[in-house]
Amino acid sequence: MPEVELPLIGDAARRARAAARVLRTLPTATKDAALLAMADALVAHTDDVLAANAADVEAARAGGTPDAMLDRLRLDADRVAGVAEALRQLVALPDPVGDVVRGSTLENGLQLRQVRVPLGVIGIVYEARPNVTVDAAGLCLKSGNAALLRGSASAYRTNVVLVQVLAEAAAKAGLPADSVQLLPAERASVGELLNARGLVDVVIPRGGAELIQRVVRESTVPVIETGVGNCHVYVDASADAEMAEAIVLNAKTHRVSVCNSAETLLVHRDSPLLGRLLTALVDAGVTLHGDDAARAAHDAVVPATDEDWAAEYLSMDMAVRVVDDLPHALDHIAEWGSGHSEAIVADSASAIGAFVAGVDAAAVLVNASTRFTDGGEFGFGAEIGISTQKLHARGPLGLPELTSTTYVVTGTGHTR
Amino acid sequence: MPEVELPLIGDAARRARAAARVLRTLPTATKDAALLAMADALVAHTDDVLAANAADVEAARAGGTPDAMLDRLRLDADRVAGVAEALRQLVALPDPVGDVVRGSTLENGLQLRQVRVPLGVIGIVYEARPNVTVDAAGLCLKSGNAALLRGSASAYRTNVVLVQVLAEAAAKAGLPADSVQLLPAERASVGELLNARGLVDVVIPRGGAELIQRVVRESTVPVIETGVGNCHVYVDASADAEMAEAIVLNAKTHRVSVCNSAETLLVHRDSPLLGRLLTALVDAGVTLHGDDAARAAHDAVVPATDEDWAAEYLSMDMAVRVVDDLPHALDHIAEWGSGHSEAIVADSASAIGAFVAGVDAAAVLVNASTRFTDGGEFGFGAEIGISTQKLHARGPLGLPELTSTTYVVTGTGHTR
Repeated sequence: MPEVELPLIGDAARRARAAARVLRTLPTATKDAALLAMADALVAHTDDVLAANAADVEAARAGGTPDAMLDRLRLDADRVAGVAEALRQLVALPDPVGDVVRGSTLENGLQLRQVRVPLGVIGIVYEARPNVTVDAAGLCLKSGNAALLRGSASAYRTNVVLVQVLAEAAAKAGLPADSVQLLPAERASVGELLNARGLVDVVIPRGGAELIQRVVRESTVPVIETGVGNCHVYVDASADAEMAEAIVLNAKTHRVSVCNSAETLLVHRDSPLLGRLLTALVDAGVTLHGDDAARAAHDAVVPATDEDWAAEYLSMDMAVRVVDDLPHALDHIAEWGSGHSEAIVADSASAIGAFVAGVDAAAVLVNASTRFTDGGEFGFGAEIGISTQKLHARGPLGLPELTSTTYVVTGTGHTR
Repeated sequence: MPEVELPLIGDAARRARAAARVLRTLPTATKDAALLAMADALVAHTDDVLAANAADVEAARAGGTPDAMLDRLRLDADRVAGVAEALRQLVALPDPVGDVVRGSTLENGLQLRQVRVPLGVIGIVYEARPNVTVDAAGLCLKSGNAALLRGSASAYRTNVVLVQVLAEAAAKAGLPADSVQLLPAERASVGELLNARGLVDVVIPRGGAELIQRVVRESTVPVIETGVGNCHVYVDASADAEMAEAIVLNAKTHRVSVCNSAETLLVHRDSPLLGRLLTALVDAGVTLHGDDAARAAHDAVVPATDEDWAAEYLSMDMAVRVVDDLPHALDHIAEWGSGHSEAIVADSASAIGAFVAGVDAAAVLVNASTRFTDGGEFGFGAEIGISTQKLHARGPLGLPELTSTTYVVTGTGHTR
């Protein structure tokens, strides 16, 4: 039971806990029926959702929110249909609950099974995009968890309607009415969620580095960190020229605002490709921040500082460093990387082996773009984020990562 | 990198981090050779260890430490030989590092493998028993992790000698010299360890509820909680009399000081066994704290309060409650249990099914004593504790639980 008062979220958390006790026992068919009902209800209530969303967008615009942010907040009929479709696609994914992870019969005859069970109550803290409300609710329910959603104040009207529609549809389909709840948008509700130890089993922040740092610092509830990506591409002396150019361009420019885009290029000093790669990046519109060797190779390179090595730009900027050898590339990544995705372009098997062994990250990509670190690309279906921590789950967080396990030990009167 | 100053442990943590980068790349044979060398060195230095230990014990005795605590602190030649033998047994266990957890070839030809890798730097905070120093060092090294050990001040002299012997032997066998380090016994070193985010990958507290609560509250480093066990045995109306008596007695009295011993007995009100079970417990020397129905069944039962339902006695005490039915047993366990080990004694398959589905704990035992929740009993070999949290690892923490994973994605120039 929590050690602190929770005036804003205590009731919701206690109801979520009760709902979770029912959810963990529901068969897959019931959960899947609820997901389909939720999708249908969303589409049926598109007008209500869009009306609430228009009010949120108007209030944000009046408050001076920049256009890029408004776009993240805005829904239209296509986007509503899209999130509804994502719910339907969850039905096709296997239910992890009840999976036997391992099992054996011990020498004394005891039968041991390690079985996947829901985590229980999952708190999600996220920023403007209201589609996260639907995605997170669907992933939590499919994996048998109750969801406490704390979206941003700017999307509150939209989220209220979304959660009401989802919860009503889920309840009609046989799920507990409190399986999905929206938490109040007051600033203090985040702090309460982070301290609802004993009621909430895990908190997952989805958002920028600042949000994630706050959650990690304040939370007494266990946290799954997601999403900060300071990803590197290392071009070895043995790299193929065309492959290196294609991967570097793709990793940097395919979609700059996402966590698996590349932020720093490391080039072996014996590589003949430095000039070619920098020219290709500059021609693609990338602003380069480089060390002396990079600046000598291309006039457009501006000087890099430690801030550049540390930066998750999420923009058409890239840091460039020429390294003496592969161990120096590993040193740079160990010092500055965020443990998300690190790529090597090389034809040397020994260089590839040393890179894979030496890099400590959620994903290591060999002759492939960092952009492939993604639950959809990995074939896991939907993901709730990409974990950059080492405990529990590292990399894309799909349905199995939203479960825990229980050892079920069956005897016939066994004692020690 | 850590956001706080670490005057007491910063250097050690940075050196551990450097050691961890080497450890993760070492083959199993090198680690196993080091474990054998450490075991031999411990035995060879038995006299040094015992001399330091005698000084610790004498200081503790002079400080008024009770005899039971002195016994936990005291080593003798047999105990030193025992911890050395435990190191040798680690050699026989499979090395989890490099295990491929899952793998596939994606439609686009990308090869995806999820591979076990060491966590990195593990901090262990523990209380008096100096054998933990050796056990923890061995488990961390076998799984490729650097260990920062923070034992109790009362065992500091012993731990200094143990770690010096272990570290020297490990270094001679080819491991980094900083693979195992003892942290200063100053009270503030625990706080520094808990805030060494960026240098330390995980902290594992081994000790009582108070230590674990402190670690969970203060730590910005991810924590694996261990060891608090308020375990229940539920005797269903369908239970066999002899089996129920044997399991209840074993779960309570086999070893009262451990986390997998039972603290509360729940009996279905239709069971004819209540009187028999209470008599057997009282005859075995157990003090019973019961509700009205239990008190009516045996004169020796004293009244129970909420504190009894919450208690991890770790003594010859047991709480007893008569429940209306199985759902009420589940309610009691959900309210008061610590999520460690919960047992049912029953012959009804439907009762067993409902109990297994409804209990949320690291282990559910069917017609078996709670005492079986143990890494050794489960066939996992050594364990560093029993996790009662839901993330990462739940139940006995063996070698695989001291690892993370990395996705290795291999392409031939793949871009999105």
